[in-house]
Amino acid sequence: MAITNGTTNGTHNVPSKRYQAVFSSENIPSSEFQQRIEKVRNGVKAAGLAGLISFGDCWRGANVCYFTEFRPLDGVSDIANAIFFLGADTEPMLFVSKQCVHYASEVTTFDVFSFDEMRSKLEAFSKERTGTLALAGEAYIPEDLHRRIKAAIGNLRLEPHPVLAEIKAVKSEHEIALIRKASYLTDQAMEAIKEALADGQPHTERELALLADQRMLAGGAERTAYDSMVQTGYRSAFNLARPTDRVVQPGDLVMTDIGARYRGYCADGGRGFIYKTEQADARKKEIVRAAADAVEAGLAHGKPGMTASELNGFMQQALVKSGYEQYSSEARGHGTGHGTGMDPEEEAPWIGPGNKTVLRENMVFTLKATITVPDVGGLRTERIVRVTSTGLEALDVYPMELYW
Amino acid sequence: MAITNGTTNGTHNVPSKRYQAVFSSENIPSSEFQQRIEKVRNGVKAAGLAGLISFGDCWRGANVCYFTEFRPLDGVSDIANAIFFLGADTEPMLFVSKQCVHYASEVTTFDVFSFDEMRSKLEAFSKERTGTLALAGEAYIPEDLHRRIKAAIGNLRLEPHPVLAEIKAVKSEHEIALIRKASYLTDQAMEAIKEALADGQPHTERELALLADQRMLAGGAERTAYDSMVQTGYRSAFNLARPTDRVVQPGDLVMTDIGARYRGYCADGGRGFIYKTEQADARKKEIVRAAADAVEAGLAHGKPGMTASELNGFMQQALVKSGYEQYSSEARGHGTGHGTGMDPEEEAPWIGPGNKTVLRENMVFTLKATITVPDVGGLRTERIVRVTSTGLEALDVYPMELYW
Repeated sequence: MAITNGTTNGTHNVPSKRYQAVFSSENIPSSEFQQRIEKVRNGVKAAGLAGLISFGDCWRGANVCYFTEFRPLDGVSDIANAIFFLGADTEPMLFVSKQCVHYASEVTTFDVFSFDEMRSKLEAFSKERTGTLALAGEAYIPEDLHRRIKAAIGNLRLEPHPVLAEIKAVKSEHEIALIRKASYLTDQAMEAIKEALADGQPHTERELALLADQRMLAGGAERTAYDSMVQTGYRSAFNLARPTDRVVQPGDLVMTDIGARYRGYCADGGRGFIYKTEQADARKKEIVRAAADAVEAGLAHGKPGMTASELNGFMQQALVKSGYEQYSSEARGHGTGHGTGMDPEEEAPWIGPGNKTVLRENMVFTLKATITVPDVGGLRTERIVRVTSTGLEALDVYPMELYW
Repeated sequence: MAITNGTTNGTHNVPSKRYQAVFSSENIPSSEFQQRIEKVRNGVKAAGLAGLISFGDCWRGANVCYFTEFRPLDGVSDIANAIFFLGADTEPMLFVSKQCVHYASEVTTFDVFSFDEMRSKLEAFSKERTGTLALAGEAYIPEDLHRRIKAAIGNLRLEPHPVLAEIKAVKSEHEIALIRKASYLTDQAMEAIKEALADGQPHTERELALLADQRMLAGGAERTAYDSMVQTGYRSAFNLARPTDRVVQPGDLVMTDIGARYRGYCADGGRGFIYKTEQADARKKEIVRAAADAVEAGLAHGKPGMTASELNGFMQQALVKSGYEQYSSEARGHGTGHGTGMDPEEEAPWIGPGNKTVLRENMVFTLKATITVPDVGGLRTERIVRVTSTGLEALDVYPMELYW
């Protein structure tokens, strides 16, 4: 591990020279960040765009972290935000809170400025150009920041565009290694839940979620990729919910949706458990089986060259055939998977009806099947997969059918 | 613990009746949520407003969680968002993702609707009214959601307004008990860092942060309130940064900024450690002392009836007197504290120059002093305090000067 003590020029707001960041060999190397910038620049040019404005925040950082090790901090102020800006014909710039400029400069291979400087930089760019700037992160960019960007870009248009999402959907070897590690840690956390359920003691949803989180951290996760969901009994029939103090009861279905984050990369996994299966209604085993069968159908049929819509079709049909159409949003055409990487959910590829995106080697995404039957229970079976040269490889290995 | 199995009407999107939520006695009781709604309604009326539109997301939930146990889930889609709407003369409504309606209905004492229904509900309200809707969460409401609200409210104006922030700045007994617990868990995590530094083994920033997080979870924290910051050596002179693989070196200053979340309530704490003080430059002890003195000045002088600006003055002057004005943003008038509660940072009260907010009993906020000297190091000493009937009570107890 190379440790270099950097120096500054003595001013405290903007360092004049970049620190040498302290990286482990597991981190994304700076050469890869540079390759990504070139790839995106080429994509921007090919699409006839004037440039890219890419928003990321502390929690949905992928649109910024694709270009730099920097990730904003938590907060209600501008420390949570970052804007990556790349003109088709200019060097990239990163805009962050004044309070984060030192840190960002240390870990970024190109120039970093504070938000205070964003207006003049964007005005200078827009004065001599026409056309459209692609916007990434349009679903969550704050209104305040969006307004300030619009005010600075003059006659340039700012429009949501998939150029970045499509490029970053294909992962590098480095990225896949990190997602694989995060998936391993998520499997370990599933095992922690199973161990607790098997110990014969009463456990609340909160306790089960906490045990999962602790197992992830014990394995070296930097945190959970998202707040863990563990729902038992009637609450397992809620599509998405936070854990409560409800104590798991014999015969309950247990829905889990958990994922670890490891050095910036995420996993996203779901399994359904039946607690004390011998006391469970037979329908509950059927629900677990039906969800597993749907994901199996995806794993069996997915391959490069196929469209996302075709892959979705195999899983959706399996769910419809199982008879749970009424109780499964995936069976009703809401999509059976999503991209995963630096955020637990990334925009591309969305595995859903009508999406003509062609699956390519090293795309990474989830395959999922949710079944929620009111008063009975439910689960989401969700796996994380990589497109190989011939099919799909699951990056997590935890079994999909769990009775004991 | 009362455990009630709810029932549904058999449809899977919107339950016709509310579930009985499973609460521990530590959670905020539903009667308190109802009191809060009345208090805010009265504030809205007193300010001559037509109503309140309050935005919260998964990570900055206070503006919504003040009214309901519901907190949105992590995600890049609308599952991360929630809108609380209260007309001056109408019952409150909560708008959430369709996928979260079951969960939100279970834990909310008033009606829950999906975002799909927001437009018609707001249109119906705005048709018969004039005036201004207060907006809470204006710094981070997504542009997309803001635009949809604007399109639905006709001639009503939508303007940022502090009515909610000012009311929720004063905490209840229940809230203070939970913040006290979160502060205790944060103290425990500080001790975990100290123990590691004292064990004589090499530790990276990442390891120290992980140990802090693990200690919080071991004590029952539901998660960290924000991603833990641990910066060593030259990196301790960065105002805000994420931990890296840098190994702490003898004589280093170690900046920490960490906080636990316990049942929805947050702590926020900072301490500076010197690793192997005997090998440290004498200036480093002076830095630690100066930050502690500034916070002590705030603790000694703060009391109800004083303005936030006056309290800030005591701390700011202490920092200026210590000679670190050039190296301390608090000394330069950027504020020496912020509200804390359901988010690690809440809007009110901001302890800063010019803020005429009068401190009132049971306001909870941090007192902080950051000193960052390039090439030497830095720290942030940050305590969490409650206004009592006569002064300030620190809710955390960990020492501010740590040499060994």
